[in-house]
Amino acid sequence: MPKPISGFPEFLPNEQIRFNTMMEVIRRNYERVGAVPIETPAVERIETLTAKGGNEKEIYALRRLAAEESDDGTELALRFDLTVPMARFVVQHAGHLTFPFRRYQMQPVWRGERPQAGRYRQFYQCDIDIVGDGALGLVNDAEMPVVIDRIFTELAIGRFVISVNNRKILTGFLSSVGLTSDAQISAALKIVDSMEKVGTERTKTDLRELQLNDGGIDRLITFFSAKHSTDETLAFLQEHLTNDTIRMGVDELTTVVAYMRQMGMPEDHFRIDTSIARGLDYYTGTVYETRLVAHPALGSICSGGRYDTLLRTLGADRDMPGVGISIGLTRLFPRLVEAGVLSVGPATVAPVLVTTMATDYLPHYLQFGAALRNAGINTEIFTEPKKLSAQMKYAHRKGFGVVVIAGEHELTSGTVLLRRLSDGEQVQVTQADLVLTVKQFLEHTA
Amino acid sequence: MPKPISGFPEFLPNEQIRFNTMMEVIRRNYERVGAVPIETPAVERIETLTAKGGNEKEIYALRRLAAEESDDGTELALRFDLTVPMARFVVQHAGHLTFPFRRYQMQPVWRGERPQAGRYRQFYQCDIDIVGDGALGLVNDAEMPVVIDRIFTELAIGRFVISVNNRKILTGFLSSVGLTSDAQISAALKIVDSMEKVGTERTKTDLRELQLNDGGIDRLITFFSAKHSTDETLAFLQEHLTNDTIRMGVDELTTVVAYMRQMGMPEDHFRIDTSIARGLDYYTGTVYETRLVAHPALGSICSGGRYDTLLRTLGADRDMPGVGISIGLTRLFPRLVEAGVLSVGPATVAPVLVTTMATDYLPHYLQFGAALRNAGINTEIFTEPKKLSAQMKYAHRKGFGVVVIAGEHELTSGTVLLRRLSDGEQVQVTQADLVLTVKQFLEHTA
Repeated sequence: MPKPISGFPEFLPNEQIRFNTMMEVIRRNYERVGAVPIETPAVERIETLTAKGGNEKEIYALRRLAAEESDDGTELALRFDLTVPMARFVVQHAGHLTFPFRRYQMQPVWRGERPQAGRYRQFYQCDIDIVGDGALGLVNDAEMPVVIDRIFTELAIGRFVISVNNRKILTGFLSSVGLTSDAQISAALKIVDSMEKVGTERTKTDLRELQLNDGGIDRLITFFSAKHSTDETLAFLQEHLTNDTIRMGVDELTTVVAYMRQMGMPEDHFRIDTSIARGLDYYTGTVYETRLVAHPALGSICSGGRYDTLLRTLGADRDMPGVGISIGLTRLFPRLVEAGVLSVGPATVAPVLVTTMATDYLPHYLQFGAALRNAGINTEIFTEPKKLSAQMKYAHRKGFGVVVIAGEHELTSGTVLLRRLSDGEQVQVTQADLVLTVKQFLEHTA
Repeated sequence: MPKPISGFPEFLPNEQIRFNTMMEVIRRNYERVGAVPIETPAVERIETLTAKGGNEKEIYALRRLAAEESDDGTELALRFDLTVPMARFVVQHAGHLTFPFRRYQMQPVWRGERPQAGRYRQFYQCDIDIVGDGALGLVNDAEMPVVIDRIFTELAIGRFVISVNNRKILTGFLSSVGLTSDAQISAALKIVDSMEKVGTERTKTDLRELQLNDGGIDRLITFFSAKHSTDETLAFLQEHLTNDTIRMGVDELTTVVAYMRQMGMPEDHFRIDTSIARGLDYYTGTVYETRLVAHPALGSICSGGRYDTLLRTLGADRDMPGVGISIGLTRLFPRLVEAGVLSVGPATVAPVLVTTMATDYLPHYLQFGAALRNAGINTEIFTEPKKLSAQMKYAHRKGFGVVVIAGEHELTSGTVLLRRLSDGEQVQVTQADLVLTVKQFLEHTA
């Protein structure tokens, strides 16, 4: 008996059917704002993945199981996100694309993380990004959370809050307390990023290791733990414009918030959180995180940000700034099911099951099935010579709406029995009325 | 500038949009017959992949890019098809599934083949399979080509023929000419399989290496190169029932053809071809191949068959026979586009583009966009401060239907201009009439 592979989840059919409906909601809303689909190969060159942001310890590279004379393939590795492959795609195909390039991509990514509850080594990311040629207006930074807001609202997975910040505020403020080298800023960002998780005392200890004095540490913690309404936070930030970087960050954030409001984003669906940084190295401006209010332990379920230099790192010969956001649906889905926020439905995509009373009658059942399918009704034919009671059990277990039954009696009289499973109602109709009556039964069920 | 990775294709957005519509046709038809979706991880245990049918030279295994203390992940490899993972899935989850288990699966597979025209190292397979618990009726072997017939007919990719055969006819006949060991039969099947490709003379030479005498070789070639109508072939086979294996194969094939006809399969969409064997080791009965009449060089674009023992090999404690078929869409798609059989459409999934005359007016454009999107109309907002002529060029290049234009004059009078790109027709309407007029314009376009 094969054992599951740790960290590589797979769903049962009823779960997969539900998962797919959620993927479709995401796809529809991404297309609603004009994003086009792309897909990239599962693998990238290792040099592409490690150019910016890739954690080598988590990257799965390929090897040939049996050596060939040409050992190619070994310079390849599985992608760990969709942003880097998209950036590589845009640089490579720029001459064939139109800008601003607005794309979505819903594919798995692989990370060799230590397996633990809620962490997977393969999971879907559902990304939307906009990349400009030369420049990209801040209105695009506002469009990302608005799309996400529509998606999470339609998915009806409970109250959520999209946190918005700007990395320039972080880096500007850090430089104002004396942290200026890339290494220091990067280390401090990681510490700030986990402040909520590890608490104030641990944060202070960690910051002391960066040679910060206690005055700087106190200013820093006060700055990043201030929780206000959006407008209060913007006012608070206006009083702390101690250098040009922080000023630019606050200006950008103020503009993005204004655009979000103009696009109708509900006030209680977002907030400014000056402490979020996002771990990945490629973000340069706006950053996002999203949390479910009732499930804080899930962490951020949808994150992203602005990356002004990533495409240059991957070979672009001019500025190609981008902004994007990503929903980690694989991680989210099982937790929502467990928590009872999502209910999983039937294990069939067909509402109708044609039963088999005797294999000799199969030609009739095949004709019934063909008639229903030709009318656009998803129909399964139970082909095995099992007892009707076993077939009815199968029908209930999978969740069919209507079952078609025809034994010798019905077939000789040119009729069929239709049984609706929700209430057991049963009618005998002529075979000519089969399709019409099934349609009526199904409308009544829905 | 990143270079393409040989053997790992990716499509431009207009191609991807077209590709996705084809995937949807396949999905809809698979669901039409009641198959449920599953997805399995990209990786399987190496022992699963090599248990039956895996070519070790073509399997990509994983390795950690940077070593970790726990070096797990290295016992995993990328799947080379979807049949083996599905079989493993069914064995592993049998207690949670209902049988006959009818599933479809549309995911990429990886094969480290030498790159050459039309061969890829990553490509989508779109599979449908039915697996029984204990037994599985031959009517299921008939359902597979009928589904494929509906799909290729709907895809409108030109005339195609689905070839059907039964491996028992092959193995039975081979044993009647003296080829009885597994190794001999397997070698002879491969020779027969490529008879059409390499010609009769080469086939004779290859068969001689199997110690066949000339009488046996002649009988064999006559047998396998006979091309008749379906009924003539069945009659021909009835005259060659020289042992029980061949008799069982002919009985099964006759039954499958009868069911296919009862399901309404058009006579000129299929034929019996006694020479097809399929390379993979796990097939035991019915086998299928599909060829486009106008593109024989493409080889088989959709193949499959019956596998009665595969699931036992993977650990099933009882008979779990299955039958399935697979469409290799990635390989097919670019060739059909090249050959002009498929035309690629617009590079947008949104019919409407809202242009930007000045960034100061963006709040208005965002409101127009929101109104259209709320009405269910996919709408892109061009956010960058480019000249209108550049935005119109962008609109034409991507293939939008309608463009919304509003400069100072329109905004002060509470109106917008709508321009239909197909014929250049333009109207000025009040902002209150925006959604309704766009709808009318789009209906007129379609």
